[in-house]
Amino acid sequence: MSEFDDIARLFRPLAFGAPEALNLQDDAAVIPSRPGYDLVVTKDAVVEGVHFLPGDTPADVARKLLRVNLSDLAAKAAEPYAVFLAVAWPAAIGAGARETFAAGLAEDLRAFGVVLLGGDTVSTPGPLTASLTTLGWVETGRMVRRSTARPGHRLFVSGTIGDGGLGLLAAQGGLLDLAAADRLRLVKRYRLPTPRLDLRATLLAQASASADVSDGLLADAGHIGEASGVGLEVALERLPLSPAALAWLAAQPDEAAARAWLAAAGDDYEVVCTARPESAAALAEAGFTDIGQVVEGEGVEASFQGRPAAIAKPGWTHS
Amino acid sequence: MSEFDDIARLFRPLAFGAPEALNLQDDAAVIPSRPGYDLVVTKDAVVEGVHFLPGDTPADVARKLLRVNLSDLAAKAAEPYAVFLAVAWPAAIGAGARETFAAGLAEDLRAFGVVLLGGDTVSTPGPLTASLTTLGWVETGRMVRRSTARPGHRLFVSGTIGDGGLGLLAAQGGLLDLAAADRLRLVKRYRLPTPRLDLRATLLAQASASADVSDGLLADAGHIGEASGVGLEVALERLPLSPAALAWLAAQPDEAAARAWLAAAGDDYEVVCTARPESAAALAEAGFTDIGQVVEGEGVEASFQGRPAAIAKPGWTHS
Repeated sequence: MSEFDDIARLFRPLAFGAPEALNLQDDAAVIPSRPGYDLVVTKDAVVEGVHFLPGDTPADVARKLLRVNLSDLAAKAAEPYAVFLAVAWPAAIGAGARETFAAGLAEDLRAFGVVLLGGDTVSTPGPLTASLTTLGWVETGRMVRRSTARPGHRLFVSGTIGDGGLGLLAAQGGLLDLAAADRLRLVKRYRLPTPRLDLRATLLAQASASADVSDGLLADAGHIGEASGVGLEVALERLPLSPAALAWLAAQPDEAAARAWLAAAGDDYEVVCTARPESAAALAEAGFTDIGQVVEGEGVEASFQGRPAAIAKPGWTHS
Repeated sequence: MSEFDDIARLFRPLAFGAPEALNLQDDAAVIPSRPGYDLVVTKDAVVEGVHFLPGDTPADVARKLLRVNLSDLAAKAAEPYAVFLAVAWPAAIGAGARETFAAGLAEDLRAFGVVLLGGDTVSTPGPLTASLTTLGWVETGRMVRRSTARPGHRLFVSGTIGDGGLGLLAAQGGLLDLAAADRLRLVKRYRLPTPRLDLRATLLAQASASADVSDGLLADAGHIGEASGVGLEVALERLPLSPAALAWLAAQPDEAAARAWLAAAGDDYEVVCTARPESAAALAEAGFTDIGQVVEGEGVEASFQGRPAAIAKPGWTHS
């Protein structure tokens, strides 16, 4: 297999004709200045055997890598624009698997309106490894940061929490007591999360700080706290849970500990944000749940019905 | 080892305080629009055992990865600005090796005036793998492309050619007939190439098309030809050679074949460009050598003293 053949055949179509890509035939891409906008840039890498499961297809890997990157942009209220891909193919990988990877990436690039502008393909004696650098646009100075939470602000999270962690357990063959439909739903959520790009306008208008929930709600809230120099209090009884997570929770012996586990499990790809109290109604309208508050101090404290709850495990660190 | 500790301790200092990096504490970096400039973006990946030698230190790996990326920017006449790093650490790597990697990267970031704006660190059961996305600035519309060579233009290359390929042979224990000083010089050139950022003003003023010489002079000239829809003729007797390469050449039985090998060997990280004939004096002044011409047609034809020369091997493809 030749790098040039791979690029021409598999990846050139993924530029969707964007002139900035220069047909993937140049040393670099060239991105014109967009007056009135900042460029938001994030980079994530995945490794087979660490970040994805043996049963994941190459298409799933490519799609999840893109979605995880787009989740970062979503939390920043940025509009997705383009990606750069580096992929290291294992020696034993076949042409079919490489095509499947590119086809999965193509499908989701198209779905999210993003173009591939460049990258690098190499071979590796190790596992499939890929990194994506993802670019988005946001109006000048408007990116929602992690460092701008202030005491007195409330803490919110979008969607439901804990499904990613439960989905991983289900994908690994666990959670056999759950209904089959619930297990499937959780696995799907873990394998192919949906970046919350739909929250963009709400975050721009309402959020004082935000992050995506990848390492686990408590850990990611903690990142906001650390970057902002504030403490956070999370009321676990307010955690928004899916029907599947509620079914799992009902069978757990210690509700406080179980909720703390859900709040620490990763891979939800929701958005955790802070906002002034007067933003509560608009955030609720957009599907956010008020789960706590920003306080003076540092660290994250979780409680369940008014009593301190131990944070059983940190979020996934994948390292 | 924790991803967050690694980022805070090893990589945060490499932002050199650039506000765009947001202290490497956010989901993304934010780059303000720079009116009057385009952003030039390139991405390269390296894998231990494929792109670097067992004896290379982690510092060498980081430095070469950066230099290879900067070489792409140099060929585009772009001014280096910032990088994003993804690194997959092998399970067995120690804290010392990770520190050495970061220290090597820091040294060269500083040397080339580039800041680290973000990235990702993960673990891998495979070999050390790293990818760098590198950003540079160029005045709007001025990036020197591969696709703009025209018949009648001359073909030029900077510096000397073949030292990278000979350096790899020497680093692998070969070329024992050469003087020790020559071998050392070649190995150094292979291990730590110097991106030709000094050619920026000349390329902007004179070049009609350009590429960096990474895959091999003939292959990279071929990339210009392919992107431009033209053919290229290279006169091997004009190849600029270092004293060490000349010493090697003198011992080869077939000069034409040996020169063709030097012109096909990779890792020189010089710049190959095309230009109108009237640019010849300015390019010679900047250290370029006229090695041939752009013609109608396609493909690269090499000759030695007027006779067609076989191109013995393609450039390294690393794949």
